[in-house]
Amino acid sequence: MRIILCGFGVVAQSLTKLLESRTNELYSKYGLKPRIVGVFDSSGSAHSSAGLNLKKLIDAKEKSGSVGAYDKSVSQIDGLEMIKTLDADVMIETTASNYKDAEPGMTHIITAMKRSMHVISVNKGPLALAFPSLMELAEFNRVLLRFSGTVGGGTPILDYAKNSLRGEKIISFQGILNGTTNYILTKMENGMSFDEALSDAKNKGYVEADESLDLDGLDAAAKLVILANWIMGMKVTMPDILRTGIRDVNTTDIKNAERNSNSIKLIASCDENLTVSPIEIKSDNPLCVNGTLNAIAFTSEHSGTQTIIGRGAGGTETASSIIRDLIDIRKEISKI
Amino acid sequence: MRIILCGFGVVAQSLTKLLESRTNELYSKYGLKPRIVGVFDSSGSAHSSAGLNLKKLIDAKEKSGSVGAYDKSVSQIDGLEMIKTLDADVMIETTASNYKDAEPGMTHIITAMKRSMHVISVNKGPLALAFPSLMELAEFNRVLLRFSGTVGGGTPILDYAKNSLRGEKIISFQGILNGTTNYILTKMENGMSFDEALSDAKNKGYVEADESLDLDGLDAAAKLVILANWIMGMKVTMPDILRTGIRDVNTTDIKNAERNSNSIKLIASCDENLTVSPIEIKSDNPLCVNGTLNAIAFTSEHSGTQTIIGRGAGGTETASSIIRDLIDIRKEISKI
Repeated sequence: MRIILCGFGVVAQSLTKLLESRTNELYSKYGLKPRIVGVFDSSGSAHSSAGLNLKKLIDAKEKSGSVGAYDKSVSQIDGLEMIKTLDADVMIETTASNYKDAEPGMTHIITAMKRSMHVISVNKGPLALAFPSLMELAEFNRVLLRFSGTVGGGTPILDYAKNSLRGEKIISFQGILNGTTNYILTKMENGMSFDEALSDAKNKGYVEADESLDLDGLDAAAKLVILANWIMGMKVTMPDILRTGIRDVNTTDIKNAERNSNSIKLIASCDENLTVSPIEIKSDNPLCVNGTLNAIAFTSEHSGTQTIIGRGAGGTETASSIIRDLIDIRKEISKI
Repeated sequence: MRIILCGFGVVAQSLTKLLESRTNELYSKYGLKPRIVGVFDSSGSAHSSAGLNLKKLIDAKEKSGSVGAYDKSVSQIDGLEMIKTLDADVMIETTASNYKDAEPGMTHIITAMKRSMHVISVNKGPLALAFPSLMELAEFNRVLLRFSGTVGGGTPILDYAKNSLRGEKIISFQGILNGTTNYILTKMENGMSFDEALSDAKNKGYVEADESLDLDGLDAAAKLVILANWIMGMKVTMPDILRTGIRDVNTTDIKNAERNSNSIKLIASCDENLTVSPIEIKSDNPLCVNGTLNAIAFTSEHSGTQTIIGRGAGGTETASSIIRDLIDIRKEISKI
């Protein structure tokens, strides 16, 4: 299985390491033999139709800051050019999310699908802005579009709701989908001011380079869009979400909530409306998790409410969700 | 799909009602057209190769206390005789669990498999005492043995661990698998004595007719056996579980735990050992749920720890898990 990897940040590096360490197991258990034939980051690229050496790739990045250092004797190709010209079976999109135009991820994904590549995206931007049309494009080009890593990191929330609950109709769901804001709200509950909690979260490396993605609920809203489309069959995008971030939550609000045995959490919710906003929930509600944890509660017609809790992000967790998607694609292809 | 239903208690009645109300949906969405061709309870039976009328079956049970009243003109057949003589595709075993010899469920299941019927069991007894050999027998007879309803009720815990986490190795798990003891321990935390909490739970109908199944951890141990076999690939049965119930937990223990921000919970755990015992866990651990809730935390190699929380039991929830099993079996059969 030939792979083009877009971006070589934390997730892509974790993926490369996992592919390297699990080579034998992935082949013997799942018949999966992934070969990265092309990869690019913001300052360079590497490619080889025989498959790049994974250890050497990590080395190049660690030593020189770019995969461009992998093999200086081979000419560098621009990322989009690589997708347009290199032959591959799957493209994995891991560049940073943005919710203005979702570029460059959007163009990467569209270009790859038009060239009949299956796509795995951990970049939420393109899905948040254009889920319905990207799904149509995938169908039209008869390719698979997978994105397990976009919601819940290593916790297979999308799969759980879609597959484990088959035979059930999910009526509504509510979730804490952003670990960073949950960390900040937890710290505020423990006595910090908003500013103190935010700078603590920044020191720990939890906050996105563009802090608005976390604080204004954009990240949570993007995940809500993906869940609403995938699980509920809605055809919605970012502008359909009623969104309020956590910037206006203050210590008094949190104290008042505590007096009623409640906590303030940034809840993404799907029932009649799609909303992301800081609301009070009972402290003994299973959904009410603390720190950087994520949680989501599905209410189904006949099986009551079920809550899944897990770490939201992390390079290895997200990388392992990409491997699940690869296994899936391998399985689907082999059916044809 | 012709079904023999063993037992007609709460779960079987809920199943019958669900099958009745969801007839059209099950057919249009899953191609599933279930026909109950035989059913028996402790005092009578009913059968019809064309399929019994589901409404009339519920009526008979509600009015006369037994399905034997369904059609007095047809001669009654003993349960085991029915399994031996009636033709069916699937047998659903819903009689009460016992952990001495697991009868009559054990003989029902073995007889059905030998007659090439697929089996769905919500009766934990046979699985707890003989999981490995029942799986072998199923394989030998080329039938499917499913049991989603035995652990987690409507919460698809078994499926989650087996399918949603594919590509992942689960290293260990811990769970609160019995809602009744969790209810009692929660009430004790709120100030009741053990005896008060037990009688409160009895009044609410939470306690099994044989209270030892709950209080001595037998029910939790049975579920642990099923999980260990199905998810971890172990070949274990009831005697392999180190088991301590909650009878010796007193209010002082609970107060002491609380002082360390801990709660005492009956935890079923699978790591180097298989144990069920009341232990202290941190109150802010996602696993630490209250009331009749169940929770299970899986720790996997690359995706961290993930916790699923849901209502443990309930007729409708368990019945809806049987429907999931039926859909599964339908799907597997159609592959052949």
